[in-house]
Amino acid sequence: MSSSTTRTNRRIVLASRPKGTVTPENFRLEDAPVAPLADGEFLVRNLYLSLDPYMRGRMDDAKSYAKPVAVGEVMGGGTVGEVVESRHPSYAAGDRVLGPLGWQLFAATSGAGVRKLESADVPLTAWLGVVGMPGVTAWHGLNRILEPKAGETLCVSAASGAVGSVVGQLAKAAGCRVVGIAGGEQKCRIVRDEYGFDACIDYKAGRVDEELAAATPDGVHMLFENVGGALMDAVLARMNTFGRVAVCGLIAGYNGEDIALRRVRSILVNRLKIQGFIVGDHPQDWPIALKELGERVVDGSLKYRETIANGLENAPRAFIGLLGGSNVGKQLVKLD
Amino acid sequence: MSSSTTRTNRRIVLASRPKGTVTPENFRLEDAPVAPLADGEFLVRNLYLSLDPYMRGRMDDAKSYAKPVAVGEVMGGGTVGEVVESRHPSYAAGDRVLGPLGWQLFAATSGAGVRKLESADVPLTAWLGVVGMPGVTAWHGLNRILEPKAGETLCVSAASGAVGSVVGQLAKAAGCRVVGIAGGEQKCRIVRDEYGFDACIDYKAGRVDEELAAATPDGVHMLFENVGGALMDAVLARMNTFGRVAVCGLIAGYNGEDIALRRVRSILVNRLKIQGFIVGDHPQDWPIALKELGERVVDGSLKYRETIANGLENAPRAFIGLLGGSNVGKQLVKLD
Repeated sequence: MSSSTTRTNRRIVLASRPKGTVTPENFRLEDAPVAPLADGEFLVRNLYLSLDPYMRGRMDDAKSYAKPVAVGEVMGGGTVGEVVESRHPSYAAGDRVLGPLGWQLFAATSGAGVRKLESADVPLTAWLGVVGMPGVTAWHGLNRILEPKAGETLCVSAASGAVGSVVGQLAKAAGCRVVGIAGGEQKCRIVRDEYGFDACIDYKAGRVDEELAAATPDGVHMLFENVGGALMDAVLARMNTFGRVAVCGLIAGYNGEDIALRRVRSILVNRLKIQGFIVGDHPQDWPIALKELGERVVDGSLKYRETIANGLENAPRAFIGLLGGSNVGKQLVKLD
Repeated sequence: MSSSTTRTNRRIVLASRPKGTVTPENFRLEDAPVAPLADGEFLVRNLYLSLDPYMRGRMDDAKSYAKPVAVGEVMGGGTVGEVVESRHPSYAAGDRVLGPLGWQLFAATSGAGVRKLESADVPLTAWLGVVGMPGVTAWHGLNRILEPKAGETLCVSAASGAVGSVVGQLAKAAGCRVVGIAGGEQKCRIVRDEYGFDACIDYKAGRVDEELAAATPDGVHMLFENVGGALMDAVLARMNTFGRVAVCGLIAGYNGEDIALRRVRSILVNRLKIQGFIVGDHPQDWPIALKELGERVVDGSLKYRETIANGLENAPRAFIGLLGGSNVGKQLVKLD
């Protein structure tokens, strides 16, 4: 116990709620002593922090699918780390864990939401991405909502991202034609060449409708939506009868922008099923999905990329970049 | 055979496609001789014609869920009538039938899509409404998509209409709280007093958001949407987590108006399921639904209203009125 009292935690708290776009001033870096462990707790030194679009919603006070972070509270987030001290019967120093331990170097926990990482074959950072929440999100939306059939065409927006890249690769493995939408030719090249999508449309090039029509000669059977707004409208116009839409994210509107849908008629004309979902609602899927994702990462059939910022102090900038689309693949912060 | 050659048919054809709002000039009344029956055909004298919002879509050339009517072709539509002559083994003069026999006094048919009306307990006109396509539409959307549970709250727009009034009454029978939206205090009074809804909001009174909040203290679990646009947005803002939305019609946009949805975020935040549907896709439900609806009409537990125009020549005006909401309940035309 004496050792923990000498440790200093470093953490990032929500300093103020954003008015529209997130700025560095919405965050504050703090040092604070690590309190002694209570019985039944263990202390984790976080090694990597995951940055995810859902965190934007938690910075607002409005109703969203995640509870708001209070002003002055540590920003929430998934981490992988190592147990450095334990008064918990199931955890010992040296154990590697995945948990919701926030934007900070140290976290004391009773183990709620924490998993011990048993497989050494899966790289540590992958537990925050392709074999973690984003990967399970992709798996659930694809398999439980879109239910792909070989020969069908799937579109996915934010195709180079942590979720979109997995959606597309799993759909390819299921025998689908897969068309991604991403911002910039660099991302599109990765989506096609590394992830093996059949096509990728650079929405920044400004010819989305024409390119989408050319890339989906048989129309679109499934849409995995991460963005919303005009890009979603563009795909709605290409949907086939009895098409399915999984709404995973609406990042286009996370800063308060208008994300109105205009091609609403397609819902009726094409008898679409549109389903919003949050992966946390479906705990029963996690073990099934993580097993498949882990195996595919280990055998090399599931590719992924990471963008890693260095140092907790750079987390706000990396997060703002993520919201603007400057990352490629999973955005992480290495906590040195 | 000789008798049919002496008969004159009177019919309404599509004279031109509407530019936005439908006008009387889009229709033309014609007289034409009734051709002799071929072997395997029978001739029906239509007694009542059903007018339905879906017909608006068929007047356009754009892709919709129903094939466009060609310019110069008889307007399609459901009718009830009586067989006056037959060269078909299963039909005889005097049989009463329901069929897709169009805006005309006489129709020769081989029987495709035609049903003989066996039950004399159900009033003839009800086969076009509450115990017909609109009733089955209500039944399917409610039972197959919304899946009501006792104690839940359902909202339905166009609540006094042929579909909406049945949706609400069936949901009440399932133990739900039912809130309608309709245009005008007269319609709202009927919805509350005759159909037994818990509340009805007059959207023309202009306080939809406030009244909806007051009428749905536990939020909205299910939305049966017939209108779209701003009214749909108003309900989306009240949806509960895991809410369900059946999209049956988007009449607000049938004349080409903008029916953009603005509260798209609700799909994700509340993990909504939104399902567009067309009752013609689900033939397996018709016998089940028609049996329940017929029994409820006969035992008096399912109420309905009809607005009946007199004479084929008045069908265009009645149809234009229907699109503008001037009817109460099922809009029919008596074909004298």
